[in-house]
Amino acid sequence: MAASVLTPQSADFPRWYQDVVAKAELAETGAARGTQIIKPWGYALWERIQGELDARIKATGHDNVYFPLFIPMEYFEREAEHVEGFSPELAVVTHGGGKELTEPLAVRPTSETVIGEAMARWIQGHRDLPLLLNQWANVVRWELRPRLFLRTTEFLWQEGHTAHATWQEAQDETLRILVEVYAEVLRDVLAVPVLLGRKTEAEKFPGAESTYTLEGLMRDGKALQMGTSHNLGQNFATAFDIAFTDESGARRQAWTTSWGVSTRVVGGLVMAHGDDRGLRLPPAVAPLQVVVLAVKDDTIPVAQRLAAELRDAGVRVRVDQRTNLSFGRRAVDWELKGVPLRLEVGPRDVAAGQATLARRDTGDKSAVALHAVAAQLPGLLDAIQAAMLDGARERRDAATIDVADPDEIDGPGFFRLPWAQLGVEGEARLAERGYTVRCLLTADGGIPGGGPDRDDAGLVAYVAKAY
Amino acid sequence: MAASVLTPQSADFPRWYQDVVAKAELAETGAARGTQIIKPWGYALWERIQGELDARIKATGHDNVYFPLFIPMEYFEREAEHVEGFSPELAVVTHGGGKELTEPLAVRPTSETVIGEAMARWIQGHRDLPLLLNQWANVVRWELRPRLFLRTTEFLWQEGHTAHATWQEAQDETLRILVEVYAEVLRDVLAVPVLLGRKTEAEKFPGAESTYTLEGLMRDGKALQMGTSHNLGQNFATAFDIAFTDESGARRQAWTTSWGVSTRVVGGLVMAHGDDRGLRLPPAVAPLQVVVLAVKDDTIPVAQRLAAELRDAGVRVRVDQRTNLSFGRRAVDWELKGVPLRLEVGPRDVAAGQATLARRDTGDKSAVALHAVAAQLPGLLDAIQAAMLDGARERRDAATIDVADPDEIDGPGFFRLPWAQLGVEGEARLAERGYTVRCLLTADGGIPGGGPDRDDAGLVAYVAKAY
Repeated sequence: MAASVLTPQSADFPRWYQDVVAKAELAETGAARGTQIIKPWGYALWERIQGELDARIKATGHDNVYFPLFIPMEYFEREAEHVEGFSPELAVVTHGGGKELTEPLAVRPTSETVIGEAMARWIQGHRDLPLLLNQWANVVRWELRPRLFLRTTEFLWQEGHTAHATWQEAQDETLRILVEVYAEVLRDVLAVPVLLGRKTEAEKFPGAESTYTLEGLMRDGKALQMGTSHNLGQNFATAFDIAFTDESGARRQAWTTSWGVSTRVVGGLVMAHGDDRGLRLPPAVAPLQVVVLAVKDDTIPVAQRLAAELRDAGVRVRVDQRTNLSFGRRAVDWELKGVPLRLEVGPRDVAAGQATLARRDTGDKSAVALHAVAAQLPGLLDAIQAAMLDGARERRDAATIDVADPDEIDGPGFFRLPWAQLGVEGEARLAERGYTVRCLLTADGGIPGGGPDRDDAGLVAYVAKAY
Repeated sequence: MAASVLTPQSADFPRWYQDVVAKAELAETGAARGTQIIKPWGYALWERIQGELDARIKATGHDNVYFPLFIPMEYFEREAEHVEGFSPELAVVTHGGGKELTEPLAVRPTSETVIGEAMARWIQGHRDLPLLLNQWANVVRWELRPRLFLRTTEFLWQEGHTAHATWQEAQDETLRILVEVYAEVLRDVLAVPVLLGRKTEAEKFPGAESTYTLEGLMRDGKALQMGTSHNLGQNFATAFDIAFTDESGARRQAWTTSWGVSTRVVGGLVMAHGDDRGLRLPPAVAPLQVVVLAVKDDTIPVAQRLAAELRDAGVRVRVDQRTNLSFGRRAVDWELKGVPLRLEVGPRDVAAGQATLARRDTGDKSAVALHAVAAQLPGLLDAIQAAMLDGARERRDAATIDVADPDEIDGPGFFRLPWAQLGVEGEARLAERGYTVRCLLTADGGIPGGGPDRDDAGLVAYVAKAY
């Protein structure tokens, strides 16, 4: 096997990330500051994540819509926290059609304002509630220190926006998305175990009453926020006058939520599972689950037959018959790209009625009888999926440390301590050292409640360095 | 049945279009000039069109990618025709992150330039060709006279971009997309028969060597361009230095194509099939193919059972059990939205072991035995799909008139005459009267060839007023 073409993780993790994103051909830097070009392999990953999220978003009763990219600047000024949070990040269009605009337009950094304005028009009576909307879109937030997938000026995401008759219904929606949509996709498809908790006041979304988050642990021991779900209370309903007539004929303000997952999760997938040979893709999200590598020209027909059998068995498979390239280079390339299984079909193998099977997750190689390939590989893919989630969970648990005192927080991983011991001031002191409270959980590991009369006294804080 | 809620087509077609887009809840005007909000029913139509196009784009070997929204202004200046064509339509970002930018950024009106720049880097040798890319994206072209779906400042589309080793391969690609992807979706899914032809020099894409188009006929007798496919020759390859080393080691310029279909086709679908009661959706594109309307509360269980049987038979179906609304209002609403079949389940029907089936395309009503619903409706949906295409083709053919002299061109429909009789000067004179050459076909109705040494002498021109 050829030597690794990547900087080792242990030597320089950020450099490893940069190398693997480039060499696995996921993305590259765009010409406009902070933007990125998502290449075929990176976009195929995003499409699979999109498909899994979209199916669950629809199954939970939401309709897809599309709102404009451009938002009049004055919309932002209606919600005080929101304008303060987003103003420094806006890209602004001042000219259109060869003329200077009388009112400049913001390129959307998120769509609460423009969707809030429409909700106010669309909602009349209680029968119009709940209003459950989602959109797939690009958004722009000016980035000074861009990083492919993780922090880019333009990124792709879905943003859900819903309106409800009561606080409780808005809270239920906020948590349903967190648990039934986001956590399920991250865990069951991306094999990333996530902490589900609530953000502190310092870390919540500008304009939210409370922000819930999913925090994954990367292989360098840093945390990554992989999705958020916000109970917006009545902040946007008040700012945009989203109201309805209830059963008794009284006029009441609605309650709204918003929630989003972005192309950032592709970066999370890379950093949660990747190793010094490149990506390691869980089979459920892999655009290709098996590559059948024809070692020589005369094994191409057998490789094609095996691929056809696997395709019939529901496996995403491709034949690599680039016999003009060396076997070693091709093997390294598929390892870089993280394809879960590589089936090597060489002349001696075929003569013996077998092929060589290489597992990307463990690196194990074994012989498999040609006639058994289609029967065995689907089950093996399931086993790899489970093993990768188990492995990630073990790494995460091993890197989660209980501390008695905030001063003990030092190094990689999650540090767990009572929130009461930290508090707003302790949180600010940690920030000076580069640590943030990633989320608050209940004492038994559950998701804390929200609402104005909540009691945070008994909650547990998870602290880490983060992307 | 309640009186129509729409302006009749014969009274005022543009007003009818505006009414139906609003009342079928497809879209509405956005706050920023010329933008639109695509509502759930309109977006569901676009998602189905997307799915059909995307499957064929992938099946013909293309990979999806994503390029940045923002393009440095100087990129446009590299291809002379391109900058001249697009400069008047650009939206320009001058401020980002609270500061004025040193170089303003254009919001992409199309991505030939930014993708051309990347192709120049990605393509080295002949083995990198063909390079077959596609992206789903929003684009912005400043519109002075916006119209929902048809002409909006921001619209959604797919744009394909490919590079090839020879002119012939680029030409084959241009026509493959036209015929195997676009015409197939428009004809087999949207039931819109289209003329496939080449644009004149006056009507081609800025920067193309030749532009191929699909022209549909709307019910007011105007034409709509529903997609285009461009052979870009070496114009962009020269501007961006897209070159490769051939088998002999020589450095050669590549040949490129681009092609796109946008949300404009949703407007075309409305105008090609709609009538005075609203949309008429071909079953293949309808987000719902059958609505089962429970007339009274006590028929809800039967309606639900029928819907479950239809769902098992592969039909997209929903139960309307809003018995708080009048039967008439609900029937009118589903007619407005164009659902192909409405199955009315009333107490007397159920007592007689039947339901009432209403066809949206013809307005016919008939009784159907409850036990026969799941067996009969899938076949009926296929028959409706075929009947709608036949109907549209008959209308188109009846509205296609041969003329001997350009002065005879007057009124709705397509006017057909030899291109030699018209020529560039005749085309300019027609433009003064609001008519354009929609496309050129061969004498026997085929797609004309392209290339610098082509002979347009024997071609036939199709002339119409157009959107």
